[in-house]
Amino acid sequence: MSQNGSSNSIKIIPLGGLHEIGKNTCVFEYNDEIILLDAGLGFPTNGMHGIQIVLPDTTYLRENRHKIKGMIVTHGHEDHIGGIAFHLKQFDIPVIYGPRLAMSLLQDKLEEAGVSDRTELRTVQPRDMVRVGSSFLVEYIRNTHSMADSYSVAIHTPLGVIIHTGDFKIDHTPVDGETVDFQRLADHGEKGVLCLISDSTNSEVPGFTPSEKSVLPNLDRVFAGAQGRLLVTTFASSVHRVNIILQLAKKHGRSVAILGRSMLNVIAHARKLGYIHCEDDLFVPLNMANKLPDEKVLVLSTGSQGEPMAAMTRIANQQHRQIKIRAGDTVVFSANPIPGNTIAVVNTIDKLMMQGAKVIYGRDKGIHVSGHGSQEDQKLMLALTRPQFFLPVHGEHRMLVKHSETAQSMGVPAENMVIVDNGDVVELTRDSIRIIDKVPSGIELVDSSHSGIVHDRVLKERQQLAEDGIVTIAAALSWTGELIAKPEIHLRGVATSVDRERLEKAIAQTIGLAVTDRWAELTRSLDNLAELDWKRLQGDIETELRRLIRRELQSNPTLVFLLQTPLELPVASPSVGTRRRSSAKVAS
Amino acid sequence: MSQNGSSNSIKIIPLGGLHEIGKNTCVFEYNDEIILLDAGLGFPTNGMHGIQIVLPDTTYLRENRHKIKGMIVTHGHEDHIGGIAFHLKQFDIPVIYGPRLAMSLLQDKLEEAGVSDRTELRTVQPRDMVRVGSSFLVEYIRNTHSMADSYSVAIHTPLGVIIHTGDFKIDHTPVDGETVDFQRLADHGEKGVLCLISDSTNSEVPGFTPSEKSVLPNLDRVFAGAQGRLLVTTFASSVHRVNIILQLAKKHGRSVAILGRSMLNVIAHARKLGYIHCEDDLFVPLNMANKLPDEKVLVLSTGSQGEPMAAMTRIANQQHRQIKIRAGDTVVFSANPIPGNTIAVVNTIDKLMMQGAKVIYGRDKGIHVSGHGSQEDQKLMLALTRPQFFLPVHGEHRMLVKHSETAQSMGVPAENMVIVDNGDVVELTRDSIRIIDKVPSGIELVDSSHSGIVHDRVLKERQQLAEDGIVTIAAALSWTGELIAKPEIHLRGVATSVDRERLEKAIAQTIGLAVTDRWAELTRSLDNLAELDWKRLQGDIETELRRLIRRELQSNPTLVFLLQTPLELPVASPSVGTRRRSSAKVAS
Repeated sequence: MSQNGSSNSIKIIPLGGLHEIGKNTCVFEYNDEIILLDAGLGFPTNGMHGIQIVLPDTTYLRENRHKIKGMIVTHGHEDHIGGIAFHLKQFDIPVIYGPRLAMSLLQDKLEEAGVSDRTELRTVQPRDMVRVGSSFLVEYIRNTHSMADSYSVAIHTPLGVIIHTGDFKIDHTPVDGETVDFQRLADHGEKGVLCLISDSTNSEVPGFTPSEKSVLPNLDRVFAGAQGRLLVTTFASSVHRVNIILQLAKKHGRSVAILGRSMLNVIAHARKLGYIHCEDDLFVPLNMANKLPDEKVLVLSTGSQGEPMAAMTRIANQQHRQIKIRAGDTVVFSANPIPGNTIAVVNTIDKLMMQGAKVIYGRDKGIHVSGHGSQEDQKLMLALTRPQFFLPVHGEHRMLVKHSETAQSMGVPAENMVIVDNGDVVELTRDSIRIIDKVPSGIELVDSSHSGIVHDRVLKERQQLAEDGIVTIAAALSWTGELIAKPEIHLRGVATSVDRERLEKAIAQTIGLAVTDRWAELTRSLDNLAELDWKRLQGDIETELRRLIRRELQSNPTLVFLLQTPLELPVASPSVGTRRRSSAKVAS
Repeated sequence: MSQNGSSNSIKIIPLGGLHEIGKNTCVFEYNDEIILLDAGLGFPTNGMHGIQIVLPDTTYLRENRHKIKGMIVTHGHEDHIGGIAFHLKQFDIPVIYGPRLAMSLLQDKLEEAGVSDRTELRTVQPRDMVRVGSSFLVEYIRNTHSMADSYSVAIHTPLGVIIHTGDFKIDHTPVDGETVDFQRLADHGEKGVLCLISDSTNSEVPGFTPSEKSVLPNLDRVFAGAQGRLLVTTFASSVHRVNIILQLAKKHGRSVAILGRSMLNVIAHARKLGYIHCEDDLFVPLNMANKLPDEKVLVLSTGSQGEPMAAMTRIANQQHRQIKIRAGDTVVFSANPIPGNTIAVVNTIDKLMMQGAKVIYGRDKGIHVSGHGSQEDQKLMLALTRPQFFLPVHGEHRMLVKHSETAQSMGVPAENMVIVDNGDVVELTRDSIRIIDKVPSGIELVDSSHSGIVHDRVLKERQQLAEDGIVTIAAALSWTGELIAKPEIHLRGVATSVDRERLEKAIAQTIGLAVTDRWAELTRSLDNLAELDWKRLQGDIETELRRLIRRELQSNPTLVFLLQTPLELPVASPSVGTRRRSSAKVAS
């Protein structure tokens, strides 16, 4: 790093969240101090077999762990706090500041992962200023988003103020009445903002994102029209939406049964902290709800994205023990499918309909709005803060480009912004912004074992296994190069109609011939058979077997050939090279 | 089948295309005669590892092969003709009627599969009437669709006329000037249509689908604005779109290089038959195009859906040998992503942009329209044909339901229509429509080996392998239950950080202990060791190994344990039961 420790520049290094949606993680570095802003997780894409969680590569943080002074959390969504528990296993973060709801959710995660003693969590209030290290003073500025208790931050640095929007939309009528703190943003704009780092999720969407409250009358109408049971699914983390649904349940005289771990969890935390207000008696356990008249029941469930293990998906698959869809049920999807989930969602909808449910879904119903600002929201943020430099983050490449075009349309010069990728080191000085370096920026994968990182090699092996299956062959040889047991063969995930007996015979023959072919050469110059290069012999046999398998099966499965070598040299060691050619014994 | 052979009813059995988009295949049966309408293929969904093609279960057709009199093809899309070559390997179809372009494409497919002698292909013209078997007279009625040379059919049966729309939209200004034959449809409506079977793909979309010609001025504008090279991708099978692109290439003085096998194939067939008109000198090979000035080049490519192996995807991945994206290139996606392909498409767009291309994409650009009619097109079809009974096909469940609601809104009584699933046997009489039975309706999967059907079991094995990988263990035992070679272990696709040496030792110990435990009992009552139940011993050892693996690896990989048995009984057979307990020898 050429500019390491320069006091004339700040380094901004996004480790995740760029050219993607998810795992937002941003490093700010000044002199020898690092602060982190959020540390989220991502979810696997197709082909990441067996993977449950995707994390950014944290090599840079591990190598610079001594510089880390603390972390700033903007809000409690998984793509902003979900990575923290994993990171704490690898490096310490002395202190983490964040809003009450986020810290409450995070506390649980850290305890579950057994790392709650590795950091200190401190909650903040609107307009709180917290010092992290000696160079950073961070000001929490209330914004509006789908999650309650969400913030933008102004990072006061020796070079000037950097504003990071976090996730935001401009909602003038938020459900909780907590509006954007325009005054603080405008004051910074007046005094001078060195750089604005802003959420690009909806930068391709024209206009303003509607207020969260706009879904209320539409959901109200749907609820009023439901004759039988109501089943509603939304993002568990959309606290405002959950609030609206609970309000309307009360209005329409329905008791609420909650399904799904994350839904239970978020509601518990939000109620405890006062972000959701409702009476205890609004809720009933599902087994109680099943005894109520249909029109008195609302089931609030996870699974709005068709996630395979979520409650609504299990209901649709008729795998839920306590609840079966029946004619008269109304199911409401108060969420749009995230790209990539579309097929899972529409399949779920189809299955629910086929079981007799009326399903309310789709963009035209007005029962979902985004938590991220569209182009006009983004312009307003730019207009309020009037930044000298601009860094679009939180989005895929074309969204970043679009956001940069929006900023240019408002007069920010093109040379005052950069389109960055994960791992890019952005150097920000008083009069320049540029990319000066790159740190490791791959991904780290966690599978169901949660026992460590799944490496690329393992993933590639899984992809090969999935594609064509695997053929395993075991053979045991003696010190004279004879097969000492019947070779065994096993096909798994291989589509074939070949005759099994014929295949087994051909394999035994191939092994025998390969050994015969190689034995003399491999043993010729040996003083002692103990020096025999079994690995090489194994490789040679494997080559022949691979040829055989491809020809016989007409496909290309993974081949594993296990050659077992004799346990120990016999007391009367057979002399080297005595084996006759063509003597390989073959099971018939 | 209770109603088999009744002359008062026709059976309609859709084997594919319902509750899904794809593999359209429909059976019409009267007395002892079957005709087929189309036989398409589908593509794999997530989790169908290694699968390239999905076909409908054809058990019913195989069992009733003697009844099959012929097939009616409506148009040449893969989801309507792609299954035929596979089916002909299993049962004969005496004759296949279809439009010229479809038959031309089909001829190639049958030759490639080596089954062109298994049927006879006959081309039809608009308003042709063809007799199939003794009961069916089929009339070809021109319609409009994204594929040239597309038809609806009126099937004249002893009970009345059944109209199957095939795929259609109402395009009053088709690119080839061949409009919908409203006159024949209206005439049938006047004389009486027993049943309308209609395309439901866009039944959730309000309004009319715009004319194919509407994309022309928008593409023209995009082409006019391109400074450097133009790269355009669309569906190869959208002959009209390809025509428009070629026209505009000529207008803007650009030579066309074609990339992708299916694009080359469809253009060759369509030109040969006169569905695409253009001079030979419009086309240049890519290596020639690379020598022309940028503004004189248009590359027309497959890959509009981000398919991994398609040309545009390989260009985006910088894997294409002959063409690299550079600043100044304009790439046009003249196609919308099909749900399920969205992520692949936007990733491709991002990669192209990152290499410097300007990418034109998205619904707001007016550079793509659907080939399927929306609600108003569907209403017009209902109004023209005035059917007594209605059967919505070609769509997912909620689309079928929506289409049935549209029909009801126009006065078709709800009891005169059925929502069916693949395999449902619909009985149609002069005064009723109902589902009376179900035939096998699963799917058949073909993988890259094309050597046969991939069974559910194999697919499940692949899913397990993909999820957690596989551990293979090989051991060879002697007639005395001793390990006669060092047990071998192989991990593939398994994420673990366990100590390999320790694991190998534990495995050898576990095998030894398990053998010791079981040997006495297994050999006790045997007269001859040759009768030893090795399978049972293997199973017992496997159980112990599975426990060990789960505990040590903290995950649940597939376990394959290959136990090799001795080749033959030694001449001096060891007597039964002589083995001492605890003598299992373990490699150290």
